[in-house]
Amino acid sequence: MEDTVFMKIIRREIPAEIIYEDEETLAFLDVKPLNPGHTLVVPKKLVRNIFDVDDKMLAAVMCTAQKISIALREALSSDGVNIGINNESAAGQIVFHFHVHVIPRYVNDGYEHWHGKEYLPGESEKVASKLRAKLLKN
Amino acid sequence: MEDTVFMKIIRREIPAEIIYEDEETLAFLDVKPLNPGHTLVVPKKLVRNIFDVDDKMLAAVMCTAQKISIALREALSSDGVNIGINNESAAGQIVFHFHVHVIPRYVNDGYEHWHGKEYLPGESEKVASKLRAKLLKN
Repeated sequence: MEDTVFMKIIRREIPAEIIYEDEETLAFLDVKPLNPGHTLVVPKKLVRNIFDVDDKMLAAVMCTAQKISIALREALSSDGVNIGINNESAAGQIVFHFHVHVIPRYVNDGYEHWHGKEYLPGESEKVASKLRAKLLKN
Repeated sequence: MEDTVFMKIIRREIPAEIIYEDEETLAFLDVKPLNPGHTLVVPKKLVRNIFDVDDKMLAAVMCTAQKISIALREALSSDGVNIGINNESAAGQIVFHFHVHVIPRYVNDGYEHWHGKEYLPGESEKVASKLRAKLLKN
């Protein structure tokens, strides 16, 4: 069976600052945080990413991510929280074990969000048609 | 009752490229996409963000975000997908109606991820202790 650094943390084979655990999920500090308290939430069973996770596991992981968000606000006085899931290398996924980043944010902490651009005339209608066709079929 | 631009889209009072709808959620194209197909998933009932959403609504919204992720890969050949939730202004939230960004990503599409920094010696243990204490109490 495939293994990951997160499976080793779950089995306590390598150290991590674990802050929460329940039957289905584990939460521990990211070792290279964007701000102190930056946490990763993982399912205890290995799945690759959003393309493979089942509904029950997705709900459990997000429920834990919410608990962590509230704890970051209460324990570290964060002004806000970013929740992020990177799926596949092109999206910045490095460890191929589904994980949710929960990042405490502070007013003027210096992180710049990406900026979008407008669609060309007629482009959004075409993109939406393709997506609708696929979503109706699935 | 408080209103939002997303409630107006849900009620079809203002136009949007809606690509998916079910009993609890709606998905439509972001008008300023990071890449074409960038979608927002919202609950049809107004809640502010991750701090207010209940388990059932959170599960429903994430289940729709997963459907959209798969559709982006299949219909637009995306190489990966970022899922992001910004909670409160400090985290980049602009519309105060809970929403999940689902962003198609392509190899070398030019978006730079934020870079973390290491903890100072002893710092991560202190941060983890504060979070554990809060999570045990909640």
